[in-house]
Amino acid sequence: MSFESVCVIGAGSIGSLCVGHLGQVANVSVLVRRPEHAAALNEKGLTVSGKSEFTSKVVAGTDPASLPDPELIVIATKAMQVEAAAKAIEGRFGDAIVMTIQNGLGSEAVVAGHGDWPIISSVTFMSGTKESDTHVHYELDTATWMGPFHPSGTAFESVQAVGELFAKSGLKVEVLPDVRPAQWSKLIFNASVNPVAALTDLPHVQLFARREQESDLGHLMYDLIEEGKQVAAAAGVELFEDPWEMNSRAVQQGATHDDEYAHVPSMLADVRAGLPTEIDFILGSLVREAARLGVPVPISEALYRLVKGRESSYDK
Amino acid sequence: MSFESVCVIGAGSIGSLCVGHLGQVANVSVLVRRPEHAAALNEKGLTVSGKSEFTSKVVAGTDPASLPDPELIVIATKAMQVEAAAKAIEGRFGDAIVMTIQNGLGSEAVVAGHGDWPIISSVTFMSGTKESDTHVHYELDTATWMGPFHPSGTAFESVQAVGELFAKSGLKVEVLPDVRPAQWSKLIFNASVNPVAALTDLPHVQLFARREQESDLGHLMYDLIEEGKQVAAAAGVELFEDPWEMNSRAVQQGATHDDEYAHVPSMLADVRAGLPTEIDFILGSLVREAARLGVPVPISEALYRLVKGRESSYDK
Repeated sequence: MSFESVCVIGAGSIGSLCVGHLGQVANVSVLVRRPEHAAALNEKGLTVSGKSEFTSKVVAGTDPASLPDPELIVIATKAMQVEAAAKAIEGRFGDAIVMTIQNGLGSEAVVAGHGDWPIISSVTFMSGTKESDTHVHYELDTATWMGPFHPSGTAFESVQAVGELFAKSGLKVEVLPDVRPAQWSKLIFNASVNPVAALTDLPHVQLFARREQESDLGHLMYDLIEEGKQVAAAAGVELFEDPWEMNSRAVQQGATHDDEYAHVPSMLADVRAGLPTEIDFILGSLVREAARLGVPVPISEALYRLVKGRESSYDK
Repeated sequence: MSFESVCVIGAGSIGSLCVGHLGQVANVSVLVRRPEHAAALNEKGLTVSGKSEFTSKVVAGTDPASLPDPELIVIATKAMQVEAAAKAIEGRFGDAIVMTIQNGLGSEAVVAGHGDWPIISSVTFMSGTKESDTHVHYELDTATWMGPFHPSGTAFESVQAVGELFAKSGLKVEVLPDVRPAQWSKLIFNASVNPVAALTDLPHVQLFARREQESDLGHLMYDLIEEGKQVAAAAGVELFEDPWEMNSRAVQQGATHDDEYAHVPSMLADVRAGLPTEIDFILGSLVREAARLGVPVPISEALYRLVKGRESSYDK
């Protein structure tokens, strides 16, 4: 199985990292919402700086009918835009494999509601900052984990082939028979780091892992993560990695940079920009799972409501 | 007992409301921190608008040695400045009665550590907005509750006399043998409204009492207030009023104004201005009481740490 033509839907920071890298080893088309974004990409291509350094030519458009038939579609929108993305390709590209790469739970099922493509479930630990419509800075070159979304009957060999494509393009990748343990580890990690950052206006600094004084945020992070772990256990998911250790390691990595450096989680960036956040797909999906499974998660519920309240302040 | 000379320490919104009103019925001196604040008050007096309309002449200074001997001292600083205020008058004004009017718990004991004045414990439900150093707008003309701080041996008659002075000045007042039930009701009310407002950037809008959708802030407010009530019960305090009903009534009062109106709680104003908040004296004092009494308060702890985290973001 080979991939000559790949379509990436959405060109935020993760989408742009996919476009730039995959554009080195395949013909890449990009589906975006803004015509001026498409025009800029068609004119200048996509430049990656940081951990990788190159510019890839791409074909961009706002209408899937204007794009070549792909063998692989990567839906790299935010979680709340997956529905619209899947709708846009409904009835098209019947021979393609579709890969989701969102935070949170449930994107695969949303896609499956709009077509019977084989679906690859993935979760990424890489990060970047979109500097402009045609330039993304590649920060953490950590792996993307991918596996078959079993209800769609995806063959494991197809996932391996996609994994090889990603690896050849310069992205780090792990192919697994079941991606849920990694997906849930990242979910619980994100469901704690993102809301705490958004509510405190703090990037992911060392205070998030400190538990010395009673007021230290590490206590809150630890308690939040404990709630998430209880939900995972009740859902029968064995975590790939302890989210508390992910949190501790991430802030230590930040500290090895100069003092000014600390990752700005996407939910904090959204709140600062007055944009809708992914709260319903991250902490919200955990709270819903907890309710379904009868697991009490008082702190998660509190933070979920605070972030929803914070969003409702935008128009005040 | 009569009060010809009253000294107010601190001229924020509550202090200014006291200065303006009491200045109509007594000689009022004001102790402030900034020389230019004192100079402005000495030159222009203090103007109250809104529920009351007048200007009172005052004598203001930054050094208690420059002020006349008072029979009553009202410490109207923020909770975290009570220690400095009490220290400033240590060894002075031995014949005066000292009244505290802070949010939270414990101001009386701080004052008692610096002198053996009879102390009046009070809690106020009035509110105002400080428009300038010499002008306060009087918004809610609700009562101030006062009673003896028993460990200091304050005679109930003294509290009655101070209550009469307040009433004569145009302020609403209730004199009680024990102010703790009202103080705790307001503590629990403040310990929920203020952190939720500070973290969501929302003034005290109707959403704070709404419990329709799962994400509505009313659920969070209700749960937080429940934790506070359990702490009060464990401390043997019977509340004067249910803080949840205080919350519901306050947002309804807001709604009778035009849509734009909603009270900006002081902690939200502090966070917006990048100033230290009273969190340690409001929600923090509840969390400490809960720990002392062995009452689990997971949501209160979470919000306490979030606000402390928010404060630590100021210098980032």
